Formats: sequence, structure tokens, C-alpha cells
Amino acid sequence: MTQTETSVKIVLDRWNASIKSGDALISTLTDETFQKQIAPGKNRGIYLLGHLIAVHDDMLILLDMGEKLYPALAEPFIKSPDNVATPMPSVAELRAFWTKQCEVLKQKFDALTIDQWFEKHTAVSAEDFANEPHRNKLNIIITRTSHLQYHLGQLVLLK
Amino acid sequence: MTQTETSVKIVLDRWNASIKSGDALISTLTDETFQKQIAPGKNRGIYLLGHLIAVHDDMLILLDMGEKLYPALAEPFIKSPDNVATPMPSVAELRAFWTKQCEVLKQKFDALTIDQWFEKHTAVSAEDFANEPHRNKLNIIITRTSHLQYHLGQLVLLK
Repeated sequence: MTQTETSVKIVLDRWNASIKSGDALISTLTDETFQKQIAPGKNRGIYLLGHLIAVHDDMLILLDMGEKLYPALAEPFIKSPDNVATPMPSVAELRAFWTKQCEVLKQKFDALTIDQWFEKHTAVSAEDFANEPHRNKLNIIITRTSHLQYHLGQLVLLK
Repeated sequence: MTQTETSVKIVLDRWNASIKSGDALISTLTDETFQKQIAPGKNRGIYLLGHLIAVHDDMLILLDMGEKLYPALAEPFIKSPDNVATPMPSVAELRAFWTKQCEVLKQKFDALTIDQWFEKHTAVSAEDFANEPHRNKLNIIITRTSHLQYHLGQLVLLK
């Protein structure tokens, strides 16, 4: 295994392990618990679950892997702060979205070659990428793993 | 820049950016705020700050970079759960430890060559490493960045 192959492996391993932690945590929380705030005056569990799905959906765009699965989630879970008056899917629906999305992302990630992980992501221009080769697809996995861990540290407070 | 060099850069960039986020967050919280729990019945801010320093100290061992700076922190902040009866340094002391430690880690990380990042960390045997080359020093940075982000997502609730 080359150093480059090893690098891609450890980045994807960390993403997959983080998703697995998310799965385990989500499955321990009841639908009622997801309606609670993680701390007084802070986001509800349901908002964080929807937010994670919406952000992971955007990875499909950034990684040039096709259309979003759940584009309607961007409005309530990214563009808007948590608000009990905002119409949003049920926790049961969000659980199903999460599971389906994790499968789709895994399939698409597994299909990428090592070289493809070092291609530019879609939010950087070809000109900028020429000087900034670190703005690649692998970097999207790294930053979104950070984002996922940040919010898992919050969701766990609902236990 | 080779793919391997780019990989090391994006991993270290994410660590450094996470430390910078931690710095910014820690500086916005008062000493009094650090005494509060992040959510009812959960860890206090002071415990999480000490926990991060203790875990980062252990990176020095794992990365074969010398002795821990603050070995006394392992007992109250890793081996023990948060407890107001546990003797621990003041928030002011912990802030100073954090700042000093970040500087030391940065110096040591900056001094490593690309090849050194792909050497085994100290918690894996040479035999196991022969078959599992992903258990390298770069992987320690990836997993500890996840850990840091997880707890930053909690500390931010004190704002």
C-alpha cells in the first residue's frame, strides 16, 4: 500500500467510523428524545439530525456525485435556525433518510479511485485549484467528518 | 505537490484549524462560565478543557515526540469522570497549559517529514504495523481532530 493509498484509507476510515458512531447513537435515542433540546435554549435533536442529512446531501454536489437526495432539507435545516414552527419531516422520516443516504454515500465513495479523490471539488475553480491542489475531494471528507463529530458531541447529550 | 504531500497537508490543516477554533472559543468563555455544566448533569467546561489538554498530551507519547507536558492531568481528566470534589488546576492555569501545549505540538508537528508521518505510532507493534500500515502517525492526527471537534461541539454550548 502506497503512502497515498494509506492516506485515502485513513481519511475514509475516519468518516466511516464517524457515521457508524452516528448510527449507534441515533438508534439509542427515541423519537420523543429527538424533540428535546440538547441543552436549555439550544438546538433540538431533530434539528441536528436534519442538519446532518442536509449537509451530507450537499457533499454529493461538492463531490460531483449527482443530485441531492433530499434537497428540501436545506431550507429548514441549513438556511433556517431551529424553530418549532418550521415545518419539517418527522423523526421517523429523518431516520429513514439518514440510513438511505449513508448507503448511497458509501456506494459512491467506494467507487472512487485514488486519483479521483485528488481531483478538485466543485466549489473551487480550475484556475484556483491549479495553485491550491489541497482543495480536493478528499478534503471534503475531512472537513465533513469534523462537522459530523462536532454535532455528535452535541447529540450524545440527549442520552 | 504530490498526492502524498497534499494528504499530509489537508490532515494537518484540519488539525490546525480545529485548534484555532478551540482557541477562539476558549478565549470567549470566562473562568466562571467554565465552571458551568455544558448541559444539566453533564460535564463542566473546566473538565472538558482539562480533558482536551490531557488527551493532546498523550499525543506526544503516541507520536514518539518526548514526554508529556502535564502528566498529572491524566488522573483527574481522563481516568476520572467530572467531579466537583476532584482537585484540579484553575481555569487560568488550564488556559496557560492549553496555549503552551498548542505551541509545542505545532513546533513538533512542523518538524516532521512527510515520510515520518507514515511511520508507526507507538501504540502499535512493528509486527502489526507491517500488516496495518494505516496505523501511522498521521492517523493519530485524524482521530484526535475528531475527538477535539466532538468536544468543541459541547464547549460551544457554554456561550
